[in-house]
Amino acid sequence: MTRTGFQRFIIGAIIFNAVTLGLETSTAVVARVGDLLHFADRAALAIFVVELLLRIYAHGLAFFRDSWNIFDLVIIAIAIIPATGEFSVLRALRILRVLRLISVVPSMRRVVSGLLAAVPGMASIAALLALVLYVAGVMATKLFQHLQPANFGDLGTTLFTLFQVMTGEGWPDIARDLMEKAPLSWIFFVTYIVVSSFAVLNMFIAVVVNGMDR
Amino acid sequence: MTRTGFQRFIIGAIIFNAVTLGLETSTAVVARVGDLLHFADRAALAIFVVELLLRIYAHGLAFFRDSWNIFDLVIIAIAIIPATGEFSVLRALRILRVLRLISVVPSMRRVVSGLLAAVPGMASIAALLALVLYVAGVMATKLFQHLQPANFGDLGTTLFTLFQVMTGEGWPDIARDLMEKAPLSWIFFVTYIVVSSFAVLNMFIAVVVNGMDR
Amino acid sequence: MTRTGFQRFIIGAIIFNAVTLGLETSTAVVARVGDLLHFADRAALAIFVVELLLRIYAHGLAFFRDSWNIFDLVIIAIAIIPATGEFSVLRALRILRVLRLISVVPSMRRVVSGLLAAVPGMASIAALLALVLYVAGVMATKLFQHLQPANFGDLGTTLFTLFQVMTGEGWPDIARDLMEKAPLSWIFFVTYIVVSSFAVLNMFIAVVVNGMDR
Amino acid sequence: MTRTGFQRFIIGAIIFNAVTLGLETSTAVVARVGDLLHFADRAALAIFVVELLLRIYAHGLAFFRDSWNIFDLVIIAIAIIPATGEFSVLRALRILRVLRLISVVPSMRRVVSGLLAAVPGMASIAALLALVLYVAGVMATKLFQHLQPANFGDLGTTLFTLFQVMTGEGWPDIARDLMEKAPLSWIFFVTYIVVSSFAVLNMFIAVVVNGMDR
Ligand code: NA
Ligand code: NA
Repeated sequence: MTRTGFQRFIIGAIIFNAVTLGLETSTAVVARVGDLLHFADRAALAIFVVELLLRIYAHGLAFFRDSWNIFDLVIIAIAIIPATGEFSVLRALRILRVLRLISVVPSMRRVVSGLLAAVPGMASIAALLALVLYVAGVMATKLFQHLQPANFGDLGTTLFTLFQVMTGEGWPDIARDLMEKAPLSWIFFVTYIVVSSFAVLNMFIAVVVNGMDR
Repeated sequence: MTRTGFQRFIIGAIIFNAVTLGLETSTAVVARVGDLLHFADRAALAIFVVELLLRIYAHGLAFFRDSWNIFDLVIIAIAIIPATGEFSVLRALRILRVLRLISVVPSMRRVVSGLLAAVPGMASIAALLALVLYVAGVMATKLFQHLQPANFGDLGTTLFTLFQVMTGEGWPDIARDLMEKAPLSWIFFVTYIVVSSFAVLNMFIAVVVNGMDR
Repeated sequence: MTRTGFQRFIIGAIIFNAVTLGLETSTAVVARVGDLLHFADRAALAIFVVELLLRIYAHGLAFFRDSWNIFDLVIIAIAIIPATGEFSVLRALRILRVLRLISVVPSMRRVVSGLLAAVPGMASIAALLALVLYVAGVMATKLFQHLQPANFGDLGTTLFTLFQVMTGEGWPDIARDLMEKAPLSWIFFVTYIVVSSFAVLNMFIAVVVNGMDR
Repeated sequence: MTRTGFQRFIIGAIIFNAVTLGLETSTAVVARVGDLLHFADRAALAIFVVELLLRIYAHGLAFFRDSWNIFDLVIIAIAIIPATGEFSVLRALRILRVLRLISVVPSMRRVVSGLLAAVPGMASIAALLALVLYVAGVMATKLFQHLQPANFGDLGTTLFTLFQVMTGEGWPDIARDLMEKAPLSWIFFVTYIVVSSFAVLNMFIAVVVNGMDR
């Protein structure tokens, strides 16, 4: 079997497995052909495990130096655990296996490499954004904790609320409710929205500039 | 009749037809002059069919090599079907005829050609986004199917919900409902929002870079 | 009086007028010093009229060749009408006078000139977007008119709904309501959102490319 | 103690203080170890004050010429006030101390300097946007004050509503309510949304162009 032929076989197995895992979400389909889907899933997993072992055998320790290989290894490892351990969450993670398509298809691999190449350029702004989020989170919890516990009850709740406001979604409802109790709280919202959009915008610019240099 | 004169006549017929089809949406207008509108529509369609046949006759088989000609042909074909077949949906598609304006007006044709030129550059990121959507869709259906069937009941419903979240619209309502039953589900939402916005942003950058090279 | 001194005097009068018009929105303030505000407004208007007449006298017919002069003239004209005609709407338009700040302050004038310079570059994509809106509007009215008249009752209502969907605001509520009656209507929404965001994005790119060439 | 060692000690103190201030938001934690947290906070503040005094002693009047030093001074000053004055708001502002991380960590300092360098380039468009907001605010208050006091009751309320509409959030609800009483008010909303997004977009472009020149 040639290298390209083998690669195509693996791609086919991944897509086939993606379909069987998709079909497994339908209770009607599972009721009818659940056993078949389960068998197909096990077969696909077996193929992936054998392929991985072959690659480890072929490359030896060098295998572990390529981060794409580690990616494949982790994904397969996640897929094996559910067979033995707990179910709901881990069973749902089996679909992550389909992400192996990224490491197998060269053009997808290139795109993801490109995306990841932009990450270091965003690191310092991302750190700044995290700092702003934390400072705003502690401040808002302290200020509004007892006024509006549903949104600012504790630090975790506040951080979720601030993430929501950063996506621009539903903030006026939260702000108007709060302004009835603390009329000046609009200052907090307007400042936070302007500062966080400015930071997010600059993170985007870092990515764009990076993307154009490529 | 000169070439430009003929072109202007066709443009006039398209705009005239756009107006009559617009008027047809008003039940009050249809009650009064429905027959007239129907006749005008048939007349416009007749003009388009004759023009198309003339062009096919003039260019012969070469006609089918230009994709703009295929575009015109498909649009006219859709317009003819409703006269014979079913109504509601197909009748509503008659307005697509007005899109012929794009192939007839040179400046519009250039703009759309430019837009379509950007599509291949986005293809691999679009494929990646589709993969992310599918993986997230299967995972969310498996995890939240029985907790919140209105949003995650089956794969189709989940994919619609994820498209909605990607447009940033109303996601906190869905997330807060779900977090009451599965407190850790915020991890899914935050990860999905960050990953999908990053992918969409990079698709935009691909278009921008493309647009600036033109 | 020097040229710069005169310009500063006019800028002062505009800002002073902006404040009096702002104060006029408060019923409490109007109850107390309404007459004073009314007098100040008249005085400011008189200054603007005299300044305009002086400029027309100084430049003669050449005055009407500069579009910024026409801008000033129209704004003052709107400000004079309410003294004689109807009130509510026209009285509210008096605040437009404050926009004269744009033509008087050189740096603002430059910014607005720059913004307007980007408009022709967007014209053909804007025309395409208008075409897409019209076609989608007629189609959606035809298809959903009787299913959901609140959003698609007639062409005007549908166009407002489509503008709303284009701003990304509240579309899932409209779509989910409609999908209960017409399950396939998600096709219309997803297509429309993807196409219109793509067109809007490209209009933005046209502006960005324009802005970077400056 | 070397310079780098001292800097690391200060960074450590800031992060330690960030954690104690974060823990202080939890009433459960405060109930248990509130005194300890309070003491840690005082200790951290003491370190910052001593460090600041040492720097002022070392640089003399030159200290006040670097705006980063003023930044540190103001933040520490805010942190000292709550020990003597009012509590809730000022106590909540103590977390601002953590922003000192920006002036201490060189890479963050560089990012924020970069962000601030973009501000002057946006100044004239920001002024234009403020002018548009004010004119639209006075106009909308005059027009809709008595029709929908919850959104347009006085100038302050209207400006908040217009900021909300500018973030694109929940505007259709406000517009549809108003259009029942003033059917033509859609003209105001559509114009305002188009003009303000265009201005915001151009402010973004100013930042992008600035960012790419760096
Ligand atoms: Na939104
Ligand atoms: Na929204």
